Amino acid sequence: MDEPAQSRPGIAVPEIPESDDALHMARAVRLAAMGRGTTSPNPVVGCVIVDASGAHAGEGFHAYAGGPHAEVVALSEAGERARGGTAYVTLEPCAHTGRTGPCSEALLKAGIARVVIAVPDPNPQAAGGAEQLRAHGVGVEVGLLAEKAERGNAEWLTFIRKGRPHVTWKFAATLDGRSAAEDGTSQWITSPEARADVHRLRAESDAIIAGIGTVLADDPRLTARPAPLSPPRPGATSSEPGGVSGAAFSGPGASRLAARGLGPSGRAVRQPLRVVVDTDARTPAHAGVLSAEAPTLVAVAEDADTGLQVPVLRLPRSPQGGLDLHTLLAELARMEVVSVFLEGGATLAGSFMREGLVDRVIAYVAPALLGSGSAALGQAGVRTIADTHRLVFEEVTPIGTDLRITARPATEEN
Amino acid sequence: MDEPAQSRPGIAVPEIPESDDALHMARAVRLAAMGRGTTSPNPVVGCVIVDASGAHAGEGFHAYAGGPHAEVVALSEAGERARGGTAYVTLEPCAHTGRTGPCSEALLKAGIARVVIAVPDPNPQAAGGAEQLRAHGVGVEVGLLAEKAERGNAEWLTFIRKGRPHVTWKFAATLDGRSAAEDGTSQWITSPEARADVHRLRAESDAIIAGIGTVLADDPRLTARPAPLSPPRPGATSSEPGGVSGAAFSGPGASRLAARGLGPSGRAVRQPLRVVVDTDARTPAHAGVLSAEAPTLVAVAEDADTGLQVPVLRLPRSPQGGLDLHTLLAELARMEVVSVFLEGGATLAGSFMREGLVDRVIAYVAPALLGSGSAALGQAGVRTIADTHRLVFEEVTPIGTDLRITARPATEEN
Repeated sequence: MDEPAQSRPGIAVPEIPESDDALHMARAVRLAAMGRGTTSPNPVVGCVIVDASGAHAGEGFHAYAGGPHAEVVALSEAGERARGGTAYVTLEPCAHTGRTGPCSEALLKAGIARVVIAVPDPNPQAAGGAEQLRAHGVGVEVGLLAEKAERGNAEWLTFIRKGRPHVTWKFAATLDGRSAAEDGTSQWITSPEARADVHRLRAESDAIIAGIGTVLADDPRLTARPAPLSPPRPGATSSEPGGVSGAAFSGPGASRLAARGLGPSGRAVRQPLRVVVDTDARTPAHAGVLSAEAPTLVAVAEDADTGLQVPVLRLPRSPQGGLDLHTLLAELARMEVVSVFLEGGATLAGSFMREGLVDRVIAYVAPALLGSGSAALGQAGVRTIADTHRLVFEEVTPIGTDLRITARPATEEN
Repeated sequence: MDEPAQSRPGIAVPEIPESDDALHMARAVRLAAMGRGTTSPNPVVGCVIVDASGAHAGEGFHAYAGGPHAEVVALSEAGERARGGTAYVTLEPCAHTGRTGPCSEALLKAGIARVVIAVPDPNPQAAGGAEQLRAHGVGVEVGLLAEKAERGNAEWLTFIRKGRPHVTWKFAATLDGRSAAEDGTSQWITSPEARADVHRLRAESDAIIAGIGTVLADDPRLTARPAPLSPPRPGATSSEPGGVSGAAFSGPGASRLAARGLGPSGRAVRQPLRVVVDTDARTPAHAGVLSAEAPTLVAVAEDADTGLQVPVLRLPRSPQGGLDLHTLLAELARMEVVSVFLEGGATLAGSFMREGLVDRVIAYVAPALLGSGSAALGQAGVRTIADTHRLVFEEVTPIGTDLRITARPATEEN
C-alpha cells in the first residue's frame, strides 16, 4: 500500500534555474514583478545587466507609465561596465519612440554585446527591437524563462493579443462551492488574510467589475484598502455605505481612469475604476460603489432609464439577457483598462464564463461546508458535462486558513 | 508591491526530524503506514530498534489482524543486538494477551533498555504497556511525533475513542462545487488518476456507504478496483451492472465482513462491505451494488417493506427523515467496521455532516466550472453562516490534473 504523496503538497513547481543566464533572467522576472499594479497601460519589465566578465553590473524595472524603462534604469546603474556585457530583459526591448526613447538604441549606445530576451513583444507598434539589435551585430536570444515571464505579464499580453482587458474572476466560497448561507449571510466565509489579499489584488487592477445584484445585496464600496491586518470587527455588516454619490470620474476619454490617494499607511493606493454592470439602471444614488474615493462607471442598456448623476456607459443588450459584455470590454480597452478584476455576482460571473471572457480564476476556498445557500457561480451556459469549462490549475497557496487556488482556462496547448 | 508567495505551494508542512530519535520514529511511522487497509480491526503500528550504540538493528510493522505485532517483527530481526538498545514504537506496546502475546513482555525479554512511544494506547483493554515497562526499569518516553502517528491511525483511534467507525466523506466536484451537469451527466469530472486514487482509498476501508439516490441514479458497483491506469473508455457510462443479486455476506455477527479476492494484478484486493442507506427499501434486485464480488448490507427503516434476498439491517427512522445514522454506525462498530468511506449522495452526506458524524473530508476538485447542475453537498443543517461546518485543511495534493484536498472538522483545540 503506497503512502500518500505527502511530499508534494502543492501544484506550482518552481522552475529551477540551471545556468547563470537563467539565474539572471529569474532575477529580471522578479524585478519586473515590482512594477505590478503601477505600470498600466504599459507592461511590467525587468532588466539585469552583467559586465563582460559575467559580473552583475546593474538592474532595473519599469515602475510606472511615463517613467524610465527597465533597460534605461539598469544601463544607468551599470555605466561603463555595460560595454561588452549582456542584458537580460523580460520583454523584447522597444524600438519605437514613445514617451521615452527606444530601448534598443540605448542598449546599442551602451555597447551591450548580447541581449537575452524572455518574451518577444507582441505589440506590432513596439516590435523590432531584437531585429534592430541583431542588425547592429548584437547577439540576441529569445525565449529564456518565457513561460514565467509571460505569467508575470499576463494582463498586458492579453490586452495586446486580444484587444480587450485581461479578466480575473475572483470568488470566495466554501469547499462545497457556496458563497452565502441559506439566510443570505456570508460574513465571513474566508479569513482576514484572504480578504486582505483581495484588496491587494484590487489595487493591482485597472478596473473592478461587479453586477447590480451584488451592489443591491451587499452595497460594497469596491475600493482597494490594502491596510495592515486589523482584528475582525464584531457585528460588522457587509454594507459599507460611505461617501456621497460621487463624480470623481471625469468621463470616458481620459487616458487614465484610476484615482490615486493615500492609504491608511500613508502609502499611495491606486483606486481602480469601479464598473457596475447594471442593465436596467437600478444603482441607488446612495450606493457605496458611488462613493467619492474612487471613480465609477455604471454600464446600462441603451434603452435604460437612468437619472444617475454619474458617468454612464450605454451598451447593447445581450440576446441571453444582460449587457453585451464583449462591447463592455472593448469600451474599457478604449479607456486603456488593461486588467479587470471581476467580483461579486454569481450571475455576472456565469455570463463572463459563458462568453469565454475569463482569463484567470482566483478562488479563495474556505475550510467550511454549508450544504445550502448561494452557489459561487451561476448559469454559465453549460448543459452537459462535455461542455464544462475546463481549466488548468496554476497555483495553490495557503492564505490564512484558506486556500487560494489560481487557474486559467484550458486551451488546445495545455 | 509584494510578489505572491509562490514558494509556498501547499498546506502540508512536513515535520522536520531534528534528532536521531525523531528520524527513527519517522521511519517507524512510515513502516506503520505499510499496514494501512489490512490491519483492521487492529491499529497500524511500526517499530524500529537500534542497538546500544544507536545503530539500526531491526524494524517491522503490523501487517494484518492475527499476524505478528510490529515489535515482535522488529525484535526478531534485531536478535541479540536488541539487548541494551532502544525501541521506537508508533503506539504504546500492548500489555494484554490477545491473539499474540503481550509486546511489552517481548521487549523486556529481549533486554530493550529504552522505549520511545509516539501515541499512548487509548484502548483500556490494551493500555498499561508503558507502565509495565517502567516497572521493570525500562526508560519510557511518550509523545515523539505523536501528531504524525495519530494521523496514520486516525481511523482506529476514532473507533476506540468514540465507539463508532471513523467516517471519511469523499466527493468529487468542480471548483464551483458541482458533482454533475444540468442534464445529470458527470463522467468524468475528475481525472483517471483521481478515480484510481478513490479505488485505493476504498480498498483501505472496512465499509463503503452510499445512499439509495446514488444507487438508483448511477448504479455503481462500489468495489475497490485499484487497477493500473487504463485509458478512458470512450462512451463509457456510469452504470456498472455486474454480477447477480448476491449473498456473499454471511449475515451480521461475522467478525470480519470484508471479502478478499484477486485484483487484476493478481494481488489480493480486499473488498470492503458495501452499505446502502435505503430507508424505504428501494434497492432493485439487479443493482450493481448487490453483485457477488463483495458483501452488501442494505440498511432500511424498521417499518420498510422489503423482499430483497440480501442481508438487511433494520434501523429506526431519524426525526429529520432518513435513517438514524448514529444507530447505523453503532451497528457497524459491532461488526468491527473501523473505517467507513462515505461516497455518493449529496443528501446522505448532508445528513452525516448535520449529525456531526464526518471525521475526514476528502475532496477531489477538478479544474472545471459548471455553473449549474447538482451540488456536491446537500442540506447539512446550516441555516446561517455562524452555523457553518468549520474544517481545517490538512493536505493538498495534486492527483492527475485535479487537487485532492483533505480536511478534518475544526475542534476547540485547532
